[in-house]
Amino acid sequence: MPIFLPQCQECDTCKNPNENVCQKFIPPPEAIGLLTDGTTRMSCKGKSLHHFLGCSTFSEYAVVDESQVVKVDKTAPLDKISILSCGVSTGYGGPFKVAKVVPGSVCAVFGLGTVGLGAVMGCRNQGAKIIFGIDINNEKKEIAKTFGVTEFINPKDYQKPIHEILIEKTNGGCDFTFECVGNIGLLESALYAVKPGGGHSVLIGVPPQGKKASFDPYPLLYGRNWSGCCYGGFKPKDDVPGLVEDYMKKRIMLDEFITTTLPIEEVNKSFDLMIQGKVTKTVMYYNEGFKV
Amino acid sequence: MPIFLPQCQECDTCKNPNENVCQKFIPPPEAIGLLTDGTTRMSCKGKSLHHFLGCSTFSEYAVVDESQVVKVDKTAPLDKISILSCGVSTGYGGPFKVAKVVPGSVCAVFGLGTVGLGAVMGCRNQGAKIIFGIDINNEKKEIAKTFGVTEFINPKDYQKPIHEILIEKTNGGCDFTFECVGNIGLLESALYAVKPGGGHSVLIGVPPQGKKASFDPYPLLYGRNWSGCCYGGFKPKDDVPGLVEDYMKKRIMLDEFITTTLPIEEVNKSFDLMIQGKVTKTVMYYNEGFKV
Ligand SMILES: NC(=O)c1ccc[n+]([C@@H]2O[C@H](COP(=O)([O-])OP(=O)(O)OC[C@H]3O[C@@H](n4cnc5c(N)ncnc54)[C@H](O)[C@@H]3O)[C@@H](O)[C@H]2O)c1
Ligand SMILES: NC(=O)c1ccc[n+]([C@@H]2O[C@H](COP(=O)([O-])OP(=O)(O)OC[C@H]3O[C@@H](n4cnc5c(N)ncnc54)[C@H](O)[C@@H]3O)[C@@H](O)[C@H]2O)c1
Ligand SMILES: [Zn+2]
Ligand SMILES: [Zn+2]
Repeated sequence: MPIFLPQCQECDTCKNPNENVCQKFIPPPEAIGLLTDGTTRMSCKGKSLHHFLGCSTFSEYAVVDESQVVKVDKTAPLDKISILSCGVSTGYGGPFKVAKVVPGSVCAVFGLGTVGLGAVMGCRNQGAKIIFGIDINNEKKEIAKTFGVTEFINPKDYQKPIHEILIEKTNGGCDFTFECVGNIGLLESALYAVKPGGGHSVLIGVPPQGKKASFDPYPLLYGRNWSGCCYGGFKPKDDVPGLVEDYMKKRIMLDEFITTTLPIEEVNKSFDLMIQGKVTKTVMYYNEGFKV
Repeated sequence: MPIFLPQCQECDTCKNPNENVCQKFIPPPEAIGLLTDGTTRMSCKGKSLHHFLGCSTFSEYAVVDESQVVKVDKTAPLDKISILSCGVSTGYGGPFKVAKVVPGSVCAVFGLGTVGLGAVMGCRNQGAKIIFGIDINNEKKEIAKTFGVTEFINPKDYQKPIHEILIEKTNGGCDFTFECVGNIGLLESALYAVKPGGGHSVLIGVPPQGKKASFDPYPLLYGRNWSGCCYGGFKPKDDVPGLVEDYMKKRIMLDEFITTTLPIEEVNKSFDLMIQGKVTKTVMYYNEGFKV
């Protein structure tokens, strides 16, 4: 399986068992869209093409750096486990690897796309007692319950900011929150929504580049914790084979994320469906002729 | 000993062994300067006076809520251990209780007042290998070394922002940083100065009220951690007796913080000295006639 995050196994980060952001992953701006060695190996009509996150998974054939490929159980269905390459693992690792949610916790997940639903599944698997699922799209309500949301909240139904709603409902704040939208204004809400003296908020969504976030530092000072993570804190080569096994042994759900299957030729339609957020919660880019 | 942070032993926070910000500590704005029961018990010429942080330690006699008084070893010298009531413990707990600095770590402490020097001492006691001490006042250099700073940096000696200096010197970032100034613009520098994928920055300084801090969320997203703490994460009744014992057994330094001793009548002079940051690093408000 190709994975957007490399694990070169040579840098200081890769050698540290507690860290996962391989130093090859943070390229200087001029190398974005290139392989980890700084080259591009794709071209079209003589013009070089950029790689997308080092995987270029919309192409039938692509050169992928060895640090970005993971060997997994041969018998696992690729059309299901491929979604472990990014969204699901990214969300799932938030509560599981990064925040280490403890049984009985009160959690809230902001944004219920693949990443958010992965986070919901992580909270449930860790034994959370209450899981608030927050999304501005009411159509997320049903699928959210499948993954473990105990109460769905649409911020549009309230006048007050969402953290105030959560603080009221929990009588002081959640134990854990996960920002899975990537909205620059929502980051601070996710922080304020955890309780002082121990609450932990994890930023998973990717905010727009070049914008600063702002926040009142007092809630942080009162003993809150704020982290961010790439790929849910997982190390691809070390952890993905285990996630595939978790799926095979039914410890994690994958099938339920996949609401539409389309041939690769209709990739643009799948984007439209995703952006509309209506019919499709997650789109699988899969067709019979596609070889890995 | 009176302590600014209550430990009521009844609220959810007090009952949780991992949390220290007693719910009595966050009063609604109208109760600031009052005791935890919402009253004031001091007056002058018939007019009621406000309590300072519930302790009112500039007064010879004061009513203090039972939740804000801690019983300690009778034989310990009050003129030394009194500085455990706020500054020293606050700084010391950052690396010790909150960040849990591990041996061999690379640390940086921003601001070398009592709080920052306490943090330096915490880093050293936890076995840090390198401790950068950062202050705009060069007169802090010598005392900083006494507490364990291995390299003193004055940001004014550089053109670049301080986090860039630290990232260069450490080849990628510190393991831990501690903001002990309370400067709204320095918070973000302290975050950026830790390495991606595991670095941890702790906000200890109290920024000016009513101002928002701003930061680029990408460094957070790349696996950094940000926390804040009150009173170094210590629970007063549970932890202060142990800190007093640590002092008696010479596991922590206190005498070295005290550079000037003045009678209570000269309290304003002591403030002037502190603000000048010249002669006095820490001022002990102590005189022979003062009874506890
Ligand atoms: N950190 C990482 O390593 C990593 C990896 C993959 C994806 N991501 C990021 O995670 C985020 C989510 O990805 P996804 O694939 O689940 O996206 P998605 O578009 O499928 O889901 C986002 C959800 O958020 C909801 N939403 C939008 N604005 C909202 C608001 N203000 N309040 C509440 N909900 C709101 C949308 O209705 C949608 O359901 C993106 O920012 C993505 O870039 C991060
Ligand atoms: N979180 C808590 O529970 C808690 C408790 C007590 C104190 N505090 C806060 O900790 C902070 C420090 O307290 P203190 O008693 O040590 O104060 P202090 O004034 O003695 O020390 C502050 C130091 O920071 C230095 N400094 C100022 N601006 C700087 C800059 N831009 N870069 C580097 N250094 C700079 C000063 O020269 C000084 O040495 C204050 O904000 C205080 O309110 C927090
Ligand atoms: Zn690496
Ligand atoms: Zn309490």
